Amino acid sequence: MEFSSKLLENAVYEMSQLPGIGKRTALRLVLHLLRQPEGQTTDLAAALITLKTEIKYCNSCYGISDTDLCHICSNHKRDQSLLCVVEDIRDIMAIENTSQYRGLYFVLGGKISPMEGVGPGNLNIIPLLHKLKEGHVEEVIFAMSASMEGDTTNFYIFKQMEGLAIKASTIARGISVGDELEYADEVTLGRSILQRIPFENALKA
Amino acid sequence: MEFSSKLLENAVYEMSQLPGIGKRTALRLVLHLLRQPEGQTTDLAAALITLKTEIKYCNSCYGISDTDLCHICSNHKRDQSLLCVVEDIRDIMAIENTSQYRGLYFVLGGKISPMEGVGPGNLNIIPLLHKLKEGHVEEVIFAMSASMEGDTTNFYIFKQMEGLAIKASTIARGISVGDELEYADEVTLGRSILQRIPFENALKA
Repeated sequence: MEFSSKLLENAVYEMSQLPGIGKRTALRLVLHLLRQPEGQTTDLAAALITLKTEIKYCNSCYGISDTDLCHICSNHKRDQSLLCVVEDIRDIMAIENTSQYRGLYFVLGGKISPMEGVGPGNLNIIPLLHKLKEGHVEEVIFAMSASMEGDTTNFYIFKQMEGLAIKASTIARGISVGDELEYADEVTLGRSILQRIPFENALKA
Repeated sequence: MEFSSKLLENAVYEMSQLPGIGKRTALRLVLHLLRQPEGQTTDLAAALITLKTEIKYCNSCYGISDTDLCHICSNHKRDQSLLCVVEDIRDIMAIENTSQYRGLYFVLGGKISPMEGVGPGNLNIIPLLHKLKEGHVEEVIFAMSASMEGDTTNFYIFKQMEGLAIKASTIARGISVGDELEYADEVTLGRSILQRIPFENALKA
């Protein structure tokens, strides 16, 4: 793609560094901003820079929060004995949307992925173990993505938890509600048979 | 979507103002920026603001250019008697990619669209007519999108050109190269029969 302007090329380049944004999309977005009032561009730039420089994380769950303790961690009505370990804040939003969980969360900040150069040291695993040793938590729920990296991360933390009298569980994997059996992938279907649940339990959900 | 941070919410809101970027995508982009070094965010913000504040347009074709006269308008090897009228700079890039056109361009800045509140006064139509009256141009090629708005814009300019001894043409509309007839839409196929071309001409292309 050849540009008639260095300024334009630079803006398109920076925009295309975002994940899932190719050069064509970046050009479309940048030209859109050019057609809008200047306020839209300055507001966007200011919002991104303010977020990046002033971002704070909850001292307890390591989720993004404007206060030292996020609104979930500071809610004493929530079950302090349950801790759900997630990759990032989007997972918290997804679980909160279900209204099915009343415990606390812990944000790892990713998952162990040697391919992307993410080792245990890049995640909040040490603070998590500190938290577990404090003694309030009775059950840890691993809610990582259903990938090899997610499973590796779960297993790594599980090994580190040896000796602590804390129950570890993982969210159920199986056929999604509404799915047809014939279209389900073999691994999911196979696991859902091996890890079948008593019918009385299924009735409760 | 409920956010744990006002800063995050604000950044996601501004990002989701871009066309085709919903709240979920905006959140994904913003969280990506948070994981990257601070330089990426400041570079993006700076590139957008610099572009918006320092953007210049070519005095001749009204395309985006860092110089008073863009590299196409200032190229004396190009055919000064041909003027191709386009909506925006992306169309110039698309036509230049074909290497089939050696004339000049003129950027209208959009098309007449009452639904979006764009009238002839919002486009560069007056400068275009000024340019045509200068007398260098012998043929105007309308290369607007094949929509009702594009056709309206072409017709409006065509009417304004009355009295000028300038040929007006429009890019050919028809079945795309590689398309199957049975899947072509009726309007395109119908027009391509009505506006059929001598076979000798088709052989040349």
